[in-house]
Amino acid sequence: MSGTDNSGSVSRSACNSKGSMIVVSNRLPFILKRNDKTGELERKASAGGLVTAVAPVVIRGGGIWVGWPGMHLDDPNEKIPESNPNDKTPTAGLLSEKIVPIYAEPKLFDSYYNGCCNGTFWPLFHSMPDRATFIADHWKAYIKCNEEFAEKTVHALHLLKQQKGKNGNAPPIVWVHDYHLMLAANWIRQRVEEDDIKCKLAFFLHIPFPPWDIFRLFPWSDEVLQGILGCDMVGFHITDYCLNFIDCCQRNLGCRVDRKNLLVELGGRTICVRPLPIGVPFDRFVQLAQNAKPVLSNANQQVILGVDRLDYTKGLVHRLKAFERLLERYPEHIEKVVLLQISVPSRTDVKEYQDLKEEMDQLVGRINGRFTTPNWSPIRYIYGCVGQDELAAFYRDAAVALVTPLRDGMNLVAKEFVACQINTPPGVLIVSPFAGAGEMMHEALICNPYELDDAAEVTHRALIMPEDERIVRMNHLRRREQLNDVDSWMKAFLKAMDSLEEEADDIGATSMQPVTIDDFDEYLSKYIGYTQKLALLLDYDGTLAPIAPHPDLATLPLETKHTLQRLSNMSDVYIAIISGRNVDNVKNMVGIEGITYAGNHGLEILHPDGSKFVHPMPMELQDAVVKLLKALQEQVCKDGAWVENKGALLTFHYRETPVAKRAALAEQARKLITASGFTPAPAHCALEARPPVEWDKGRASIYILRTAFGLDWSERIRIIYAGDDVTDEDAMLALKGMAATFRIASSHITKTSAERRLSSTDSVLAMLKWVERHFSRRKPRANSLTYKSARKARESMQMHMSYQMPAKTSPRPTPPRTPDKNSSGSESS
Amino acid sequence: MSGTDNSGSVSRSACNSKGSMIVVSNRLPFILKRNDKTGELERKASAGGLVTAVAPVVIRGGGIWVGWPGMHLDDPNEKIPESNPNDKTPTAGLLSEKIVPIYAEPKLFDSYYNGCCNGTFWPLFHSMPDRATFIADHWKAYIKCNEEFAEKTVHALHLLKQQKGKNGNAPPIVWVHDYHLMLAANWIRQRVEEDDIKCKLAFFLHIPFPPWDIFRLFPWSDEVLQGILGCDMVGFHITDYCLNFIDCCQRNLGCRVDRKNLLVELGGRTICVRPLPIGVPFDRFVQLAQNAKPVLSNANQQVILGVDRLDYTKGLVHRLKAFERLLERYPEHIEKVVLLQISVPSRTDVKEYQDLKEEMDQLVGRINGRFTTPNWSPIRYIYGCVGQDELAAFYRDAAVALVTPLRDGMNLVAKEFVACQINTPPGVLIVSPFAGAGEMMHEALICNPYELDDAAEVTHRALIMPEDERIVRMNHLRRREQLNDVDSWMKAFLKAMDSLEEEADDIGATSMQPVTIDDFDEYLSKYIGYTQKLALLLDYDGTLAPIAPHPDLATLPLETKHTLQRLSNMSDVYIAIISGRNVDNVKNMVGIEGITYAGNHGLEILHPDGSKFVHPMPMELQDAVVKLLKALQEQVCKDGAWVENKGALLTFHYRETPVAKRAALAEQARKLITASGFTPAPAHCALEARPPVEWDKGRASIYILRTAFGLDWSERIRIIYAGDDVTDEDAMLALKGMAATFRIASSHITKTSAERRLSSTDSVLAMLKWVERHFSRRKPRANSLTYKSARKARESMQMHMSYQMPAKTSPRPTPPRTPDKNSSGSESS
Repeated sequence: MSGTDNSGSVSRSACNSKGSMIVVSNRLPFILKRNDKTGELERKASAGGLVTAVAPVVIRGGGIWVGWPGMHLDDPNEKIPESNPNDKTPTAGLLSEKIVPIYAEPKLFDSYYNGCCNGTFWPLFHSMPDRATFIADHWKAYIKCNEEFAEKTVHALHLLKQQKGKNGNAPPIVWVHDYHLMLAANWIRQRVEEDDIKCKLAFFLHIPFPPWDIFRLFPWSDEVLQGILGCDMVGFHITDYCLNFIDCCQRNLGCRVDRKNLLVELGGRTICVRPLPIGVPFDRFVQLAQNAKPVLSNANQQVILGVDRLDYTKGLVHRLKAFERLLERYPEHIEKVVLLQISVPSRTDVKEYQDLKEEMDQLVGRINGRFTTPNWSPIRYIYGCVGQDELAAFYRDAAVALVTPLRDGMNLVAKEFVACQINTPPGVLIVSPFAGAGEMMHEALICNPYELDDAAEVTHRALIMPEDERIVRMNHLRRREQLNDVDSWMKAFLKAMDSLEEEADDIGATSMQPVTIDDFDEYLSKYIGYTQKLALLLDYDGTLAPIAPHPDLATLPLETKHTLQRLSNMSDVYIAIISGRNVDNVKNMVGIEGITYAGNHGLEILHPDGSKFVHPMPMELQDAVVKLLKALQEQVCKDGAWVENKGALLTFHYRETPVAKRAALAEQARKLITASGFTPAPAHCALEARPPVEWDKGRASIYILRTAFGLDWSERIRIIYAGDDVTDEDAMLALKGMAATFRIASSHITKTSAERRLSSTDSVLAMLKWVERHFSRRKPRANSLTYKSARKARESMQMHMSYQMPAKTSPRPTPPRTPDKNSSGSESS
Repeated sequence: MSGTDNSGSVSRSACNSKGSMIVVSNRLPFILKRNDKTGELERKASAGGLVTAVAPVVIRGGGIWVGWPGMHLDDPNEKIPESNPNDKTPTAGLLSEKIVPIYAEPKLFDSYYNGCCNGTFWPLFHSMPDRATFIADHWKAYIKCNEEFAEKTVHALHLLKQQKGKNGNAPPIVWVHDYHLMLAANWIRQRVEEDDIKCKLAFFLHIPFPPWDIFRLFPWSDEVLQGILGCDMVGFHITDYCLNFIDCCQRNLGCRVDRKNLLVELGGRTICVRPLPIGVPFDRFVQLAQNAKPVLSNANQQVILGVDRLDYTKGLVHRLKAFERLLERYPEHIEKVVLLQISVPSRTDVKEYQDLKEEMDQLVGRINGRFTTPNWSPIRYIYGCVGQDELAAFYRDAAVALVTPLRDGMNLVAKEFVACQINTPPGVLIVSPFAGAGEMMHEALICNPYELDDAAEVTHRALIMPEDERIVRMNHLRRREQLNDVDSWMKAFLKAMDSLEEEADDIGATSMQPVTIDDFDEYLSKYIGYTQKLALLLDYDGTLAPIAPHPDLATLPLETKHTLQRLSNMSDVYIAIISGRNVDNVKNMVGIEGITYAGNHGLEILHPDGSKFVHPMPMELQDAVVKLLKALQEQVCKDGAWVENKGALLTFHYRETPVAKRAALAEQARKLITASGFTPAPAHCALEARPPVEWDKGRASIYILRTAFGLDWSERIRIIYAGDDVTDEDAMLALKGMAATFRIASSHITKTSAERRLSSTDSVLAMLKWVERHFSRRKPRANSLTYKSARKARESMQMHMSYQMPAKTSPRPTPPRTPDKNSSGSESS
């Protein structure tokens, strides 16, 4: 096949990228079949445009392809056969040693593939949520299969590492494809970091990425985003999909994003998002069209061509109905025009697709029944596959191509048609604005497939379009597709990967600018507005002060301290530091007077006037604490581990313990803590023993706010909460909808209830400076809430609360009750 | 009913707004019924929360309600009855003279209401595009009915004007409601401007506003946006809907928007977009709950309550299935828990709703059949309406309320339930994140209705939730709803209307900042990027120079001239002025050397080097021009009108003709032009007579670009096109996808193919300054395209083109052909 030569020549020019490439896709670039006679496995090559462009690059760089071979193999040791010597397709050179096949348990694979991929993601990502099912078991299968793909990819990376030399030290590119594998990157990243393998991770989605309002319907949408963001570069067909994705990252995950440069920040990493519109092997289609024998016999009939998988996204029912309307309105086309619709069978074991087939069969019958004359039927409906040569002949000789999907990531039929339009005068392309192709192919006639009248009109216009207009339009279309063919897509991808190391490429920067004060403008100035007083609730370690090997070394950076100091002098800003440290220790570390400190996750609160709230340690626990402390010191304080006595709780630190010994030691400590009735809670290289008290940073925050601002605090003030720890999540949850919340997280798989993520203490400092700027710009208000009134509110509340142990039968202990009706009432129930 | 007192007291405080209010809604706040015995019309009052809040404000201010009375009246003169003397509802005081009813032809109204409103907008706006139908006839009916509502509203405004005094001179507020009436505002605005009536126009949407990707499926989406933007203030329930709307305005219409302050600019006006989350009459529900007798008899059974219209958006099928899963997983609830589902019949004549009812019936039967024991059935399914008192008792006594729509604008059931939860301990609210209510009611349990396992888990959690947690959550929920009840919504609306005159309100500015250079950053710097050369194609009148009474007075502002001058000296910027004036005239008006001028819509092009292209006037037309000129001068050049001879075309000006005489004169001129074989084309107070030549600003632009930059111009340069005239649309269409395009438009109903709209010549100046700043910041590039090469390209093309008249039979004359294969070939075909 002549196409091979083209792709061969391309790979040479496209392969100036330095590293090898590992492609990870649901399907290998060929499928395996067992020969009925010999019982041997054989390859059956695929001829898709993607394979044409990508396979040569993989082969030339000595790369590997990871994917499912299209059949379930019983024996995982059975060798993948080499390609048939007669195979001239681009994958022929892909040696079996360069193939890493996926073995999946058939039922699991079915649940992953038919259940989650095609039952959920396919309709959802095509913005047809009604058709999507959301089933937990399918999602679990999806996770498991993605793990398996990741596992095999890591194996492939190890294989590459062993065969070093050929590609020097350049890190390989791992290129994960499509909606089947949106979670794989995270595990790959985790494993290569553990195994200290260098690689660059990329993802490309071949279908649309939906807007947030649709995407968020998926119950595990956060996991999908975090999975994709495991990559360094994420590609979509068009800018709209990029922006939808970025929007989801900001709204679902609270990521900092840069819409102009198409960047997302997560866990301190920048992920580049790029529009990479795929093309077709243009020259190959030209050759096919040049060589194909004519198939359509009646030169006096104009043929309207449709070529689609039989899928509900393709708008086939709408198309037939629009064609019917055309014949109704413009009877001059009767006996002059034929709709040749080729519907390629797809997912035939799924009921939805069977229903669609039935509807189509019935519709074709009805419309033909209505208009057929002795020598003519309006619709020629081919349900089946068509060879490449025949297809090229259809493309070449059709007067009109109808590419009218209801939604389509790109749609290559539009591009293949254009490539094959080598005759003069040419035909006319009609394309839907809801296909990616509709975004680019401006000279096509644009037709909203939902509106049958308009579709009929546009088709009529195409059928009677004057020759000169057809020529101008088709020339432009062909020129663009020739230029942006599938190889140029491949090159654009490699260029985008290369640009990751550079500061800026053609499209823009590839790494996020450091956080600046202005970054907070959009989110905070909207929330804080003009008339409000602000409460700043801040965690200490990892939020204000960088994490250090020992708590004593985690000092507050001077600039942060000075900023906080100035903020503490502003009458409209109230500050509370809420830490897991004990209250005296955190006050000591911060060293600013006139603000509130909460220690032990809020069990102790020190007010600016020196008064102190201590959540009482129940009498019953006093003994237990002493016993637990002793037990920990005697049994697990070795190899550098020690126990810190924080008053209302104990913290077991093991950050100076050798890594290998940590897990065992922590597990032992956990057992001791649990045994003594305390709750073990993990912290940074530490385990806290918390008393069984219903109190956390959330309840402490609300207590602090109520004390400072009165019972109607939520109506009087605005709140910013920032923290880096899981214990801060309680506060973020409790303040949801009432505060601006920031989670400082250096890992990209962190889950959070916060509305925004920040990647470092530097970002928190920038946020504090935003607050300073915002409040110093405002004119002072005469009637602003004074500390006096706040103090009065506090004085009216009990300073110390009595505590009752919960009854054993209650599944949850009774907490201190919010005294909604009587602010001077007892805090206890 | 005690509720009346509440709403009465509210209206007093809410009605500090100055003007009267005209409410325009599909339905009047009551329906009319004909008494079977007397044959007289009677009112049947509605008791919805909206009416409760709005009616008192209308009544107190002497306002008017425009709407459909719920039945088709045969005699338009039949008087609307006054309210029943026993009527204690808020609408009782609405006198019949304050009612303007809509009379609509039943078939048309059905097509509008069931067809377009409920068959198209309801599913589409709920992001369920699969269920939406797009039918041109329904849309036409929608337009017609909206016109009728607008007509009646203008009538109401005239009525108000006659009864002046009471409300002084404050302009009335016209408040248009919901998805039924998205087009009405435009006609109202047009008519009040003509009739010189002052009023403020507002719109509120009671359902969600979908994201752009969904909204744009509607074939006439631009018209809907322009209709809504006819108002001064547009309200939605939540900020997300506001942002979706603003996004659509920018992407569909190319409006300048301010996302931070929620503003849209169209036709020189600012439209404020505001989130106004609706509430319920909280105190009325409290009273109902206090007075309602217990209905649920078995105190040992926990009741899970669902109350919904039987609509596919409500997620009822999902809910029943989740309940089944609950019983499967947690059999401890068997005989202890009952799901009481009240489904209010809705749209029962629509097949989709009939199907849903059948599915529900079947599902209830199946689940009950599976779990029922001799003394217990799991589901009590009431298909019908329930009285207010009984409903309040259900709300009060239910243990759990399931508010789990798949999509819902707000959902008031969640709020009514919370209001009625007066008992201690209270119940638990479960709410879907896809309801507007889910955005605010943070203390409810959030449940994604699509995920049955999770829904079952959340329901279980609600059923076993400890008392103290229930109390804390419900206290917060009730507090918020009490504060944000329906009257506070009404007040917020009036406050938003008042703020329209102020510079900034609590939420932010209410008018767009004047266009600045930075406004162009997002759009242009992305498009132009780093490495490109720029061609600026600019119209003159209304684009660079403000429109003046006479063309000679439309001089170029000095600052614009200087900016253009500086730009013309930049090596990377190419400038062409493309005008309807003749080329010497436009050059004279601009007065800058070294740039390209195109006159007569591109029929003449003067290159910087002095060479000139003139699109030839066919010999056949030479005589015709002379004759037409003479005819125009003799027959229509009176009352201040005159003819301008531009060489290749004639322009008939009538801007100095008295307004009353213009239409007739223009019509006469049009006839003369048509009769002589020329095409009449409207311009600003002028009519052009264009020769039947296939040439327009689009073709001229492409000719200019090809001449200046060679055949592959589209790959080598970036283009900005700006124009204010319909003739500029040809260029915007021709350059679609290849240029950044701006339409200068002072009317908000202008249709355009441009990507962005600007409201004045000042904005164009700001854009030019952006270009200057952008290109002066860049470092000069050694290999930038020089004029030399451009000139060479031009020299290789023919300067003057021969022209052939098209054959009479061809539906479109043959245009000058793009010489794609041979750049030195003849331009003619």
